[in-house]
Amino acid sequence: MRQTELFSKTFKENPKDEKSPNAQLLIRAGFIDKLSSGIYSFLPLGLRVLKNIEKIVREEMDKIGAQEILMPALHPKENWEISKRWGIEEMFKIKDEELGLGWTHEEIIAPLMKKHILSYKDLPKYVYQIQTKFRNEPRAKSGILRGREFIMKDLYSFHDSEDDLIQFYEKIKKAYSNVWERCGIKEKTYLTLASGGSFSRHSHEFQTVTPSGEDTIYICRSCGVAINKEINEGICPNCGKENLKEEKAIEVGNIFKLGARYSEPFNLRDEKGNPVLMGCYGLGISRLMGAIVEISNDEKGIIWPVSVAPFSIHLILLEDGIKKKADEIYAILQKSGFEVLYDDRIDKTAGEKFNDCDLMGIPLRMVVSKKTGEDTIEIRGRKDKKIRLVKIKELIKNVEGFFQ
Amino acid sequence: MRQTELFSKTFKENPKDEKSPNAQLLIRAGFIDKLSSGIYSFLPLGLRVLKNIEKIVREEMDKIGAQEILMPALHPKENWEISKRWGIEEMFKIKDEELGLGWTHEEIIAPLMKKHILSYKDLPKYVYQIQTKFRNEPRAKSGILRGREFIMKDLYSFHDSEDDLIQFYEKIKKAYSNVWERCGIKEKTYLTLASGGSFSRHSHEFQTVTPSGEDTIYICRSCGVAINKEINEGICPNCGKENLKEEKAIEVGNIFKLGARYSEPFNLRDEKGNPVLMGCYGLGISRLMGAIVEISNDEKGIIWPVSVAPFSIHLILLEDGIKKKADEIYAILQKSGFEVLYDDRIDKTAGEKFNDCDLMGIPLRMVVSKKTGEDTIEIRGRKDKKIRLVKIKELIKNVEGFFQ
Repeated sequence: MRQTELFSKTFKENPKDEKSPNAQLLIRAGFIDKLSSGIYSFLPLGLRVLKNIEKIVREEMDKIGAQEILMPALHPKENWEISKRWGIEEMFKIKDEELGLGWTHEEIIAPLMKKHILSYKDLPKYVYQIQTKFRNEPRAKSGILRGREFIMKDLYSFHDSEDDLIQFYEKIKKAYSNVWERCGIKEKTYLTLASGGSFSRHSHEFQTVTPSGEDTIYICRSCGVAINKEINEGICPNCGKENLKEEKAIEVGNIFKLGARYSEPFNLRDEKGNPVLMGCYGLGISRLMGAIVEISNDEKGIIWPVSVAPFSIHLILLEDGIKKKADEIYAILQKSGFEVLYDDRIDKTAGEKFNDCDLMGIPLRMVVSKKTGEDTIEIRGRKDKKIRLVKIKELIKNVEGFFQ
Repeated sequence: MRQTELFSKTFKENPKDEKSPNAQLLIRAGFIDKLSSGIYSFLPLGLRVLKNIEKIVREEMDKIGAQEILMPALHPKENWEISKRWGIEEMFKIKDEELGLGWTHEEIIAPLMKKHILSYKDLPKYVYQIQTKFRNEPRAKSGILRGREFIMKDLYSFHDSEDDLIQFYEKIKKAYSNVWERCGIKEKTYLTLASGGSFSRHSHEFQTVTPSGEDTIYICRSCGVAINKEINEGICPNCGKENLKEEKAIEVGNIFKLGARYSEPFNLRDEKGNPVLMGCYGLGISRLMGAIVEISNDEKGIIWPVSVAPFSIHLILLEDGIKKKADEIYAILQKSGFEVLYDDRIDKTAGEKFNDCDLMGIPLRMVVSKKTGEDTIEIRGRKDKKIRLVKIKELIKNVEGFFQ
């Protein structure tokens, strides 16, 4: 894409009403726009990142046999009265109080699946959606880490036995771990024990360590498992050691064995009358985007992992008079299948272009200038300090090497 | 996909609370599920259709240079007070009346673009989203043709002159026409004159003729243009003839020259102080899915156009004892890149399988049975009356021929 066509601009100053690094960087780089506290628009570059993350999550969910659906955001009061959760403050309610906006979907999926699960033979089933959720947060102040409107993947599983539920629960742990790895946050993301509910002693969260996280966790230096503050008693429930380290973190995912908590009130049973056992598995898509920015940036801007970057290559036409050469390279890169943002602006200085490039954080920078001459181009990884000069006839080979 | 894995079931009876063909067929075939009046979930097969439609619309919008973004559904009151539209009844309001749910996005896009359009040099720009919208419909009764929650593509264009706006307006007309053609509804879809507003005498709707449409239009038998009831005076404003035919229709798209209606109150101006001229262009994604079903069905079920069908091929294992052969064919088809729904159920009769197949409306049916022998398979297009026997070694050639 040519940058002269891209409508979003970058901003030199941090927005005054944002304290969290993810919001500051994403707004300045033109990836998101703030409409109101905890409510953001995703601009073209931001939406590209979001879709890359969605694709990764979708692939990992499909791989374990889950089926994608799309449920509504508008929820009738009746459903939430059955589960006795209509009173929970997190729900935005429509003026006449007959409808609320979904912040989770147990109350919708349980009666839905009741129409399609008629027998133990129909089990197990795994169903997920990627959908916009709403939560009445009185003080949303962490950018897209905690929104009043946000995008989430929620998966629900349905089983005829506890063993089967446990088996799937372990599969999901692995799938989530794959997502963190593919999105470049695995090293900072900890499997965290949290309170469980009546069916299970613990649930599990996935917490990514970052100073602006709103949760507090205790990481066990001995076994590497973390414990959420709410259940911490100074000792690791996993290995029994007392070697804990306090950190701020953001919950990028959580998994929970629901048991019969929702199948009982919604009467979701097999033909023998046994309640279907359920699990629920959340993963914040927009929050994950924010978490990546939180842990992957420097004083100049964002550093996107290749897997989720809005473009792979940022091609910069440094000065007037060599546009033809830059156009040619743009064409060559596109022909080889690379996604390229081409800074073809002629009304910006070299300094402004370099600053924008570092701020946006695209993995590979490529500069076409008079200095490098006719048959050479300058390339630099966003994370690297050193610039390399590459012959244009060896460009594709070099670029392929970079992305391997 | 194996049908034994698909969680959604089909239903023999029409749902009692649905009168419109789209809702009856889509619910019976397991494509959608009704949560409440005008509020539906999209199940795996329905979501696949929806995504195919989205892809077509996205491609046509990208082709004319539009950039995709994603705006929020939660809208602050302030924005709607600026345009003096907070009082409109269509908006669902959150209990405390400080937020409403977006049924359109002029109030959001105008202030957003104000941050990025600083000069006439930044014009024109075309921005769109595919997003969930909400509308307080007191009597939603037409299935997914008119929902309280629905998915819409809305595009907004920004211009420095009326000429430029008019030019883009004509481009959009063509892009919409491409969408109708690719989705198989072009023959029944009419460019329809509707009331214009202060900037332009007429706006344009695209109306698809179907008996369960909620709009009334008058089609000019002379020039083929249609007129919306609200502006009909018994004479065609396009050609001046009085040869009109009344039809029921559903509005699948509308395009409107807004002029300065929103740029004035939101102060969206170029550096000389001239208001930026705007156009808005809506296209109902979920409604389009409903419209396709309305005009493309028979007494047995839905007939999907190839372009939007959830799968291309419905492979049916008719009876036990030939599963190995059917499995092989399933593998061959997948290897050749076809999307196949494979009815591998063994607890259903041949009649039940044929009924489900016709109800679901996948374009090409393929039956593996003992009767056809080891090296032959039976194929039939959903629209065709005749069955053909095809040698398995010539299968791919035949299937490719069918889809050409």
